[in-house]
Amino acid sequence: MPHTPTRFTALEVHDVRFPTSEHLDGSDAMNPEPDYSAAYAVLRTDDPDGHEGHALAFTTGRGNDVQAAAIRALEPWVVGRRVEEVLGDLGAFSKEMVHEPQLRWLGPEKGVVQMAVGAVLNAAWDLRAKRAGQPLWRHLAHLDPEEVVDLVDFRWLTDAMTRAEALALLRRAQPGRAEREAQLLELGYPAYTTTPGWLGYSDDKLERLAREAVADGFTQIKLKVGADLTDDVRRMKVARAAVGEDVRIAVDANQRWDVGQAVAWMHALAPYDPYWIEEPTSPDDVLGHASIRRAVHPTKVATGEHVANRVVFKQLLQLGAVDVVQIDAARVAGVNENVAILLMAAHHGVPVCPHAGGVGLCEMVQHLSMFDFVAVSGSWQDRVVEHVDHLHEHFVAPVRLEGGRYRAPLTPGGGGQMHAASIADFRFPDGPQWRARAAR
Amino acid sequence: MPHTPTRFTALEVHDVRFPTSEHLDGSDAMNPEPDYSAAYAVLRTDDPDGHEGHALAFTTGRGNDVQAAAIRALEPWVVGRRVEEVLGDLGAFSKEMVHEPQLRWLGPEKGVVQMAVGAVLNAAWDLRAKRAGQPLWRHLAHLDPEEVVDLVDFRWLTDAMTRAEALALLRRAQPGRAEREAQLLELGYPAYTTTPGWLGYSDDKLERLAREAVADGFTQIKLKVGADLTDDVRRMKVARAAVGEDVRIAVDANQRWDVGQAVAWMHALAPYDPYWIEEPTSPDDVLGHASIRRAVHPTKVATGEHVANRVVFKQLLQLGAVDVVQIDAARVAGVNENVAILLMAAHHGVPVCPHAGGVGLCEMVQHLSMFDFVAVSGSWQDRVVEHVDHLHEHFVAPVRLEGGRYRAPLTPGGGGQMHAASIADFRFPDGPQWRARAAR
Repeated sequence: MPHTPTRFTALEVHDVRFPTSEHLDGSDAMNPEPDYSAAYAVLRTDDPDGHEGHALAFTTGRGNDVQAAAIRALEPWVVGRRVEEVLGDLGAFSKEMVHEPQLRWLGPEKGVVQMAVGAVLNAAWDLRAKRAGQPLWRHLAHLDPEEVVDLVDFRWLTDAMTRAEALALLRRAQPGRAEREAQLLELGYPAYTTTPGWLGYSDDKLERLAREAVADGFTQIKLKVGADLTDDVRRMKVARAAVGEDVRIAVDANQRWDVGQAVAWMHALAPYDPYWIEEPTSPDDVLGHASIRRAVHPTKVATGEHVANRVVFKQLLQLGAVDVVQIDAARVAGVNENVAILLMAAHHGVPVCPHAGGVGLCEMVQHLSMFDFVAVSGSWQDRVVEHVDHLHEHFVAPVRLEGGRYRAPLTPGGGGQMHAASIADFRFPDGPQWRARAAR
Repeated sequence: MPHTPTRFTALEVHDVRFPTSEHLDGSDAMNPEPDYSAAYAVLRTDDPDGHEGHALAFTTGRGNDVQAAAIRALEPWVVGRRVEEVLGDLGAFSKEMVHEPQLRWLGPEKGVVQMAVGAVLNAAWDLRAKRAGQPLWRHLAHLDPEEVVDLVDFRWLTDAMTRAEALALLRRAQPGRAEREAQLLELGYPAYTTTPGWLGYSDDKLERLAREAVADGFTQIKLKVGADLTDDVRRMKVARAAVGEDVRIAVDANQRWDVGQAVAWMHALAPYDPYWIEEPTSPDDVLGHASIRRAVHPTKVATGEHVANRVVFKQLLQLGAVDVVQIDAARVAGVNENVAILLMAAHHGVPVCPHAGGVGLCEMVQHLSMFDFVAVSGSWQDRVVEHVDHLHEHFVAPVRLEGGRYRAPLTPGGGGQMHAASIADFRFPDGPQWRARAAR
């Protein structure tokens, strides 16, 4: 009997929203009342193995339906195609979707279309890792250097990093991979916590949560800043007193400032030794970040959670505009574009400290940092993955933090799979959680 | 009887697509088969004057539904609000929508959400100009300098241009406004034509159309390039022979190249004296444009139709990365953001030559260049608005070209209003034009 190839049978999309604005968790200077949400994608096949690919694009509430529509627009690129052909060459699959000749007008390579490509690609990676029986970080870390560079779209990157340079970098990291994988499994990957520092929290709550973070083993915490300078100076003082001199305190302005304002504000916070200033201004402002960096030294400059694509990251690195690159699992075009960014950061000697939190971002992005440690930069020096203590209960394999470090996940897949019950419960607007709120 | 304030009663959105891919009009190196489309917005009020605001976001086919969904997401910001309050302070209205605290996550300030804000704002401007009985260019040109700067969101711009600097610039242009308005009405605004140069056209068609363009009075034409170097050199030679030495030939690569490729390709075309190279690489690559500009001098570098917002334009100007700024009526957040870009370009002494074509882009963007001439830069030296001979028949007040110049429109409004019959005919997927195609 001839072998019948398996095919993708569905790209299901769900609009899932959590009413986080009812508390002030997640509040910052630009996001006063977010409802953390997921435009959630499921790839199904007719393979009898029953595996599905799950991933999501994160949003903050309104517009999650627009994001979901963008994911649905990619259905013709996947449904009906052969599973092994697509999963066997995710570099080609990525390029097809990113360069879709009509959809690209809506970006190009930015906004909901880029995030939609990211959701579909990340779902494909989840499926591929499950079929291989591996957590995604290990699946990526065991690829040959040639297989890794084949994932990357070098269009627009070659003035900063060629394929040959990326390949050389991966080959240099090859000898130590097994040893670093063992280290990672034993020690876990360093984390920092944003849980104490939301803008809506009282000083008492900030102080208590900061002390708890240190007791839990974290060596870095983060404070949201940017709404009111007097408040920020006071909160920074409270936080510094609570954690002592040896714990790093990063601050995060969520894009609130103009260049001059950023510099003035950071000079006022300088006495409390902020470790980095995150998103001081527009994520599109490469030159602005470079100016701020020169002016606030030795405080470091970090950005990336809203950086739309590898071309903007390229320029941040070319210009030396940032000390810390902050990738996000769901902002760019998925694992493939994040691999390009990890390679460029390593090529320029800049550490990557991912943005996380939201819905499932910790669960997904930890895999990329672990892959970076094992197979790309080969280092966790000055590298930390953000951790926020929200909404993990909705995930099939929630992150595990111990002693301020992420335990390496062992569950096969990419980490983004939610419980079916959570999806059903929080579907917008027809899930019971939202119907109950509408009735009140 | 007390005065009852009028209110916005509806934001109607239509998915309108034209099957332009059936011919090769509009074909270029990145857009091989576009179906020129409009996510079309209509603002209605309960004012007995019966005026409506019309505008559109342009797309190239697939994804027009996603763009339409993004426009619909703005409905709560307009329907039910007082017409005079909104139209009386479009600066405030613009900021509310651009900074919508949940929707902004989908950008920020880029992609379908930014274009949706642009469509709603442009519809509001269309309504305001109709109520004033003026074409938009004249309505804008008659505002006081203070009213103009109140339209602009200076967030993230102040390191390049302050409100005071913008105001000073507008005041310097004030004395000559009446004289320039008279000149504009008499002579029209300079145009160039892309009609001869589509990539899908034969050499014979290119030659014939290039000659016709010169006979029609155009002093600049444009060729699409970037797919094949040998073809481009041959086509450039054909075009140069057809138009002679005194007519400018711009070339447009539609983002096709990496930095090094762009330089090599332009060196090969240099013997035929290209006037500008448009979109040589990623529209996000400010540093890349600066490198290319240094290498291809005296050919000029132009970009902007895909530049997402004023922050990227700011950097292009700060770095001297472009010789020509190409605004687009429907890419950024509407008239307001384009006013910011016109002001920054004038402040940096760089000419603005708008992108047009598509669906209704000529009809809309001509108003911005005419406003620039009368009230901002005060000059049309080396300034031309693109003209493409497509789809004008669907507009209530189509552009009028005479002797290679745009006649100043006199019909009240912003130019983006389509005939109701065209909207009905080409509605996707249910209009008769599309039903007939589906049946074949």
